[in-house]
Amino acid sequence: MTLDDVLAAIDRDLDNSLARLFTFLRIPSISTDPAFRKDCRAAADWLSVELNTLGFESRVHATTGHPMVVAHTHRPYAGRPHVLFYGHYDVQPPDPLELWEAPPFEPRLVPVPGGKRRIVARGAADDKGQLMTFMEACRAFVAVEGKLPLPVTMLFEGEEETGSPSLKPFLDAHRDELKADLAFVCDTDMWDAATPAVTTMLRGLVMEEVVVSGADRDLHSGLFGGPAINPIRVLARILADIHDADGRIAIPGFYDGVGELDAEIGAQWMKLAFDEVKFLGGLGLKVAAGERGKHVLEQIWARPTCDVNGIIGGYTGEGSKTVIPARASAKVSFRLVGDQDPTIIRDAFRAFVRARLPADCSAEFLSHGASAALRLPLASPYLAMVRAALEAEWGRPAVLKGSGGSIPIVGAFKRDLGMDSLLVGFGLDDDRIHSPNEKYDLASFHKGTRSWARILAALAQ
Amino acid sequence: MTLDDVLAAIDRDLDNSLARLFTFLRIPSISTDPAFRKDCRAAADWLSVELNTLGFESRVHATTGHPMVVAHTHRPYAGRPHVLFYGHYDVQPPDPLELWEAPPFEPRLVPVPGGKRRIVARGAADDKGQLMTFMEACRAFVAVEGKLPLPVTMLFEGEEETGSPSLKPFLDAHRDELKADLAFVCDTDMWDAATPAVTTMLRGLVMEEVVVSGADRDLHSGLFGGPAINPIRVLARILADIHDADGRIAIPGFYDGVGELDAEIGAQWMKLAFDEVKFLGGLGLKVAAGERGKHVLEQIWARPTCDVNGIIGGYTGEGSKTVIPARASAKVSFRLVGDQDPTIIRDAFRAFVRARLPADCSAEFLSHGASAALRLPLASPYLAMVRAALEAEWGRPAVLKGSGGSIPIVGAFKRDLGMDSLLVGFGLDDDRIHSPNEKYDLASFHKGTRSWARILAALAQ
Repeated sequence: MTLDDVLAAIDRDLDNSLARLFTFLRIPSISTDPAFRKDCRAAADWLSVELNTLGFESRVHATTGHPMVVAHTHRPYAGRPHVLFYGHYDVQPPDPLELWEAPPFEPRLVPVPGGKRRIVARGAADDKGQLMTFMEACRAFVAVEGKLPLPVTMLFEGEEETGSPSLKPFLDAHRDELKADLAFVCDTDMWDAATPAVTTMLRGLVMEEVVVSGADRDLHSGLFGGPAINPIRVLARILADIHDADGRIAIPGFYDGVGELDAEIGAQWMKLAFDEVKFLGGLGLKVAAGERGKHVLEQIWARPTCDVNGIIGGYTGEGSKTVIPARASAKVSFRLVGDQDPTIIRDAFRAFVRARLPADCSAEFLSHGASAALRLPLASPYLAMVRAALEAEWGRPAVLKGSGGSIPIVGAFKRDLGMDSLLVGFGLDDDRIHSPNEKYDLASFHKGTRSWARILAALAQ
Repeated sequence: MTLDDVLAAIDRDLDNSLARLFTFLRIPSISTDPAFRKDCRAAADWLSVELNTLGFESRVHATTGHPMVVAHTHRPYAGRPHVLFYGHYDVQPPDPLELWEAPPFEPRLVPVPGGKRRIVARGAADDKGQLMTFMEACRAFVAVEGKLPLPVTMLFEGEEETGSPSLKPFLDAHRDELKADLAFVCDTDMWDAATPAVTTMLRGLVMEEVVVSGADRDLHSGLFGGPAINPIRVLARILADIHDADGRIAIPGFYDGVGELDAEIGAQWMKLAFDEVKFLGGLGLKVAAGERGKHVLEQIWARPTCDVNGIIGGYTGEGSKTVIPARASAKVSFRLVGDQDPTIIRDAFRAFVRARLPADCSAEFLSHGASAALRLPLASPYLAMVRAALEAEWGRPAVLKGSGGSIPIVGAFKRDLGMDSLLVGFGLDDDRIHSPNEKYDLASFHKGTRSWARILAALAQ
């Protein structure tokens, strides 16, 4: 049976797979730092060469930022779904360097208690290790069968860690080339080290900045304190008004489109072995602070939130200064779910602020982005195939989970290419992505590769 | 007549007086910022040298903070009152620098419509310009008569803008040396540009900093937004709770000891030509924001207030960052009146904050100083002499007014040395002290110097 042969090839070739991943990890493709521009190009070129080796027709496309790698299988596959696989070759800066136990771009295999091993390097999990699980599954098919079992397009970008500025124009310009039946996006996590997961809900995000102004200059709080309006106090009052005593958001219309949690999904979540005490304890917390009466997982995955991400006003140096500042500002973000409309939410927030401005105060707003929430169709036959393949590899049903974060590419695929994405990845929540000593379990890499082989085989049937 | 000669000497020497003031203003003696420690020392040394030139015996005393300058005339003056003159050589930080029309430590004489001229620099009014009016009056007496008309002690500190932490121990240690019949404190304002004033009421000041902490590190607002407590939100809620809808302070016990305004003083204030629209309009405001039902002058001079002087938390750079910060902090100050006890107010504020902390949040407090309000004796014969001298110079009776600001030294003189102070200064309410483009009218400087010459001559008779 071919799949067994492919899985056996993956097992046999594991050391070579690791060696290839290590070569990739040694390239310091830090996208945010112009000093590493050549390294980003080198990472793109390395991927392109690997893809050509696997029989893809690959091309590195220049952009105004870092290049895109696009590759296609050029064989006829009548009746089989065409899959787009997305990943990114850029990584976060490694600083603070002094907190790394070894240099971040010298990957190591580190044994941990219990007999497991970890791949430690910047990018080990995010996203080079994850991306390579798919590449190595493809390689095994080519080794055993001489070709992939279905048509695959690869899309790798180098600007994911800097907000993907080139992505939208690139998708617009290559719409026909990139459109497939289904996209796979791989930078997501398992439920835990033993339980695979497919992420089917992503929260949307509206990011606003508000600047409240009062007097035309900073004033002495002794000489003018009393009659002079204080923008920090005004801003604090407005921010305090956003949430009610139950942790719900008091902006009129905010919950329009939120909907109730799907009963089946909710029931599945409640059965998960989720330890709230442990989850909060890991953050130094004891009590869930979100909406009263909502389970923590629902608070993160399925309920909208508002957070103040930053605030500044007046004198913030050492000591004291008796000033009434002329202005104060806050960065406020909203996580959206269901059918909440980002534009309506943004306008409702701005109206909420304006309605609370006292005499002599004005507010200016800056938008730092707005995207809707995404729910992936639960009825998709592809989803059923993927869940079956994951269960076959891990011996447990795959959890359908949400993510509180936002993955803009998924929205772009849906909006610009009319294509649904399945979010499958093998990261763990202790992978320390974006932090020192980032790691990817060897089991994530090995069984992740095997999982993709099973998924590709299932979709090809 | 000697006084006329002294006044004539002041008029003749005005350009040189200005040059000396500009030299003094060029020293960036910012007391709150350790980077300017040497500059504070330089300002003290400069004063000491000037005082020696005027025949004083001057000494710079080290403290645990910035130094004190003390100088004495050492001549016998049988039967004439001994005067202590107090000023401060430190200044506020100049930020925000970008709002200054020229560098804050490069003093300029700027013509304004109507033929007047202004001295523009940080410290021009607060307090270097004011302090120099007294110094230059002394200089004129020395130039004309070879000596001052009465015994004078000078006391200049460099920590007035940071709550004067060294002052109390210094007064305790130098009680006998500093005790005089009367103190003059000069960092106060005229009633308006044509009307001199003596300030007889001063508000007290309690300065607190509060740091609210939540999780043990910054968190991703997507992955943890909802269950993770947000210290900025907690702080905003607490700050919003401090004032009620009528602008009164909701901290229990806050108004204990406030008392009602003295009827006679209140009646005098109501007769003053105070234009609320003009006063607020000069700040870019239209509506008095303080306690509902209180006249603006009463709000500033005779009612307690609370202001947030600074706030910071989370990401405050350009763009956005989806962070829930581990902590947020605010600088909060209270202006006190009547018999309000600063220690009780401080403790009541801290209890008010602690009572509002939700689960998982803690608060730390820093005290940046605390002083009670003051009322000066209206029956003093020195007050009558000073009012007559001011009327002779300005051609109008001097107003007895209050001040919303706090001058802790006045309380210390009364409490520690048993000495009353007369608060006489020539600042104006549009001097922009503590703000960008601080100025001191050339007329304030020139006629202020002349006023001091008249006051010294009157006291010496």
